[in-house]
Amino acid sequence: MINYALLSDFYELTMANGYYLSGMKDRILYFDLFYRSNPDSGGFAIACGLAPVIEQLQNMHFEDDDIAFLRGKSIFSEDFLQYLKHLRFTGDMWAVPEGTVVFPNEPLLTVRATAVEAQLIETLLLLLVNHQSLIATKANRIVRAAAGRTVLEFGARRAHGKEASLNGARAAFIAGVPATSNTLADKLYGIPASGTMAHSWVQVFDNEYQAFATYCSLYPNSTSLLVDTYSVLRSGVPNAIKAFKDAGITKGSIRLDSGDIAYLSSRARAMLDEAGLEDIKIVASNSLDEGIIREINAQGGKVDIYGVGERLITAKSDPVFGGVYKLVAVEDEFGNIVPKIKISENISKITTPHFKKIYRLYDRATMKAEADLLTIYDEEPDFSKPFEIFDPDFPWKRKILGDITARELLVPIFKGGELVYDVPSIEESKDYCSREVESIWDEVKRFENPHNYYVDLSQRLWDEKQHMLTEERKKD
Amino acid sequence: MINYALLSDFYELTMANGYYLSGMKDRILYFDLFYRSNPDSGGFAIACGLAPVIEQLQNMHFEDDDIAFLRGKSIFSEDFLQYLKHLRFTGDMWAVPEGTVVFPNEPLLTVRATAVEAQLIETLLLLLVNHQSLIATKANRIVRAAAGRTVLEFGARRAHGKEASLNGARAAFIAGVPATSNTLADKLYGIPASGTMAHSWVQVFDNEYQAFATYCSLYPNSTSLLVDTYSVLRSGVPNAIKAFKDAGITKGSIRLDSGDIAYLSSRARAMLDEAGLEDIKIVASNSLDEGIIREINAQGGKVDIYGVGERLITAKSDPVFGGVYKLVAVEDEFGNIVPKIKISENISKITTPHFKKIYRLYDRATMKAEADLLTIYDEEPDFSKPFEIFDPDFPWKRKILGDITARELLVPIFKGGELVYDVPSIEESKDYCSREVESIWDEVKRFENPHNYYVDLSQRLWDEKQHMLTEERKKD
Repeated sequence: MINYALLSDFYELTMANGYYLSGMKDRILYFDLFYRSNPDSGGFAIACGLAPVIEQLQNMHFEDDDIAFLRGKSIFSEDFLQYLKHLRFTGDMWAVPEGTVVFPNEPLLTVRATAVEAQLIETLLLLLVNHQSLIATKANRIVRAAAGRTVLEFGARRAHGKEASLNGARAAFIAGVPATSNTLADKLYGIPASGTMAHSWVQVFDNEYQAFATYCSLYPNSTSLLVDTYSVLRSGVPNAIKAFKDAGITKGSIRLDSGDIAYLSSRARAMLDEAGLEDIKIVASNSLDEGIIREINAQGGKVDIYGVGERLITAKSDPVFGGVYKLVAVEDEFGNIVPKIKISENISKITTPHFKKIYRLYDRATMKAEADLLTIYDEEPDFSKPFEIFDPDFPWKRKILGDITARELLVPIFKGGELVYDVPSIEESKDYCSREVESIWDEVKRFENPHNYYVDLSQRLWDEKQHMLTEERKKD
Repeated sequence: MINYALLSDFYELTMANGYYLSGMKDRILYFDLFYRSNPDSGGFAIACGLAPVIEQLQNMHFEDDDIAFLRGKSIFSEDFLQYLKHLRFTGDMWAVPEGTVVFPNEPLLTVRATAVEAQLIETLLLLLVNHQSLIATKANRIVRAAAGRTVLEFGARRAHGKEASLNGARAAFIAGVPATSNTLADKLYGIPASGTMAHSWVQVFDNEYQAFATYCSLYPNSTSLLVDTYSVLRSGVPNAIKAFKDAGITKGSIRLDSGDIAYLSSRARAMLDEAGLEDIKIVASNSLDEGIIREINAQGGKVDIYGVGERLITAKSDPVFGGVYKLVAVEDEFGNIVPKIKISENISKITTPHFKKIYRLYDRATMKAEADLLTIYDEEPDFSKPFEIFDPDFPWKRKILGDITARELLVPIFKGGELVYDVPSIEESKDYCSREVESIWDEVKRFENPHNYYVDLSQRLWDEKQHMLTEERKKD
């Protein structure tokens, strides 16, 4: 396995060296990984990337050539470099499982570790969680837009590199996309690979019919014919019908990759049905996303399967998942947890301090999620009685929840560097994600102007944050 | 080295099996890799990704477990699977060097190989070239917007995975970004890693001044102080000035990561200058891109160094480089090259047929590029006389170029599977890219409404394409 310990912003290393030399290397810090707004102005996001994070942390170490490289920079102390040689991740970590529905400003992951360890893992944690949560969130939007029709992940050629294509297929699978065109994703993760044919296949033969007939004879049980190399309705569909009929194939598909998909799919459907080929499905591709898919469906397009490429694998409409990793507490010499806050010129960048828990509160009657509640780590709220929540920005906006049940979202992943979490299979994560999305009100799932889900603070946590803000302002 | 032979769309493998079984496995095909429009409505793009392509092709092979995986699909013939075992890339390839300024509809890369080989490398070629050309093109836009100020690549945490962060830093370097925050990119590629400090450093100390003073004592020759953890002007800059002064540091920097950068940088500059710290530079970060940088500069912001993160490493404003890989010719049994065309419902998706050359025509007086000319592979245009070019879409638009000199852009990379190209260092590619951008008229480099650079076809190539279009239309 490749060693990615140096895949770290350089300042993590200069800060780590600084902590080491300032006698703070064993200082225990708490960091939250959270994000500030939902991609595409959506109502929620899907957390993803935990399994790769676990893999990296279990493997975290510096090789001799990493140390030699750092020594060459002439700014690190030799003691620190020797210390890095034996460094492993020995901290604690809590996280929401992959596939969890999450909201802005709540931790997807909390790290408790020494200053050096907590800092050195920041970049890797962020890039893995950011990338996969981005793709999972986008893929789930597309799956919901398809409204029951199948979505396939076709994006490898436009992904941001090999790893992005593989992890993207993985994140999309967890979020509800059942298959990919990426053969290696099938081999590595067991995500079924599927595909049709390229224009080049059709072009190489003397004519379209011959290309189709050859393919039918080769793959009678999984034939998919690309019908837009010349003219869809005048040549492609008629040749496909003839090839299917001549080969006696009744189950298979045709693919449209250009033109007006709503119109062409309707016309193609009629032609296929007229020929008695009701079980031949129609696949559509060509720069699709959730918006275009909703339009095609709304206009009565007859697409059975959407192959979605570049706009899924890059999350084109909003390709950054803005997860950050912020210090929320430190432990003093007696082991007391001291909350920390970050003020900012931008109000939205002010953090919620402290080592925290997240409770998701469900209405018992519907089992739909009503709100999330962030509390200080040692709070034990009593949800057996009607429970009052309030908006942290507008604390006079209060609401009493009646018959609720609560679930803690953050689960222990590492304890003292040991993995204490049973990593689910991606099929399990996919099923879990599906249940998670099911538990959210439709109003939160809307594509336009979704309802703003409540992420509230407990009274104690809110009081603590206000107190710290007031104290910081006094220093000005 | 990891084997990525299966990082291929599944249809490449079903087609390859089909070519094999149809007796066409050794049929020689020609594919062009080209793109159809410039990202961000720009005037040009920067080609990048060739070195990783070469690395993949040199290493191309199927392992036993790859073959076993494919066998498990029960649709591939055993003969084909045995054939894959010994398959290596034995074809020819031509490409434009990394860092070349390129335009829509001209090949960045041409492959001549057997049907099986040419098809199986498609996905990898596309994703490597697409990703790196995307980032190089975006990075060059940002460098040009900075207008002489330094740009640093700070995006690792928002990249689409580990590889995207590394290859992104590499592409950005070639396109003119001299340094990165990504330590591993420094180790692997020699791109200097640099950085400042995080908010967590400032928060861990009892007060901001102490955090700054400690950092100054640790890194007196490369101090960079992050001044926005509390209040930039009331606390951050005054504490930084005091820390610099107390440590006797006159060369270093402060970093602004929030708020109104134009205003804050001007005020900070004045405060630093007043304190006699004229050589302390100002670094700005926080979701910057070419548009925001131009605004900050236009409004008199005093930023010396722009640290650009998520919007560079994801090419946020337009995160897909739409390179495609299209069949343009085949060889018949006598070795004659037979051009192929792909018609489409979308006019913009019609390909330019044939095995081609690209000439870039320069005005001798200015040595600025005037036009690119695509010709059939065996044409030898005479550029010693005034040379007439015409617009392929509007052939009555003609122009005579007087005193020109021409350069062929596509250079041989592989010949019969052997590497015949001396891969430049990334420093050489960076210098080459800088000269490339220098050779383009400012009108083509405009951010808004750039001049449309001419990519013309030779008369013979144009005639051939028209003839093929007419013949195809007759078949309808």
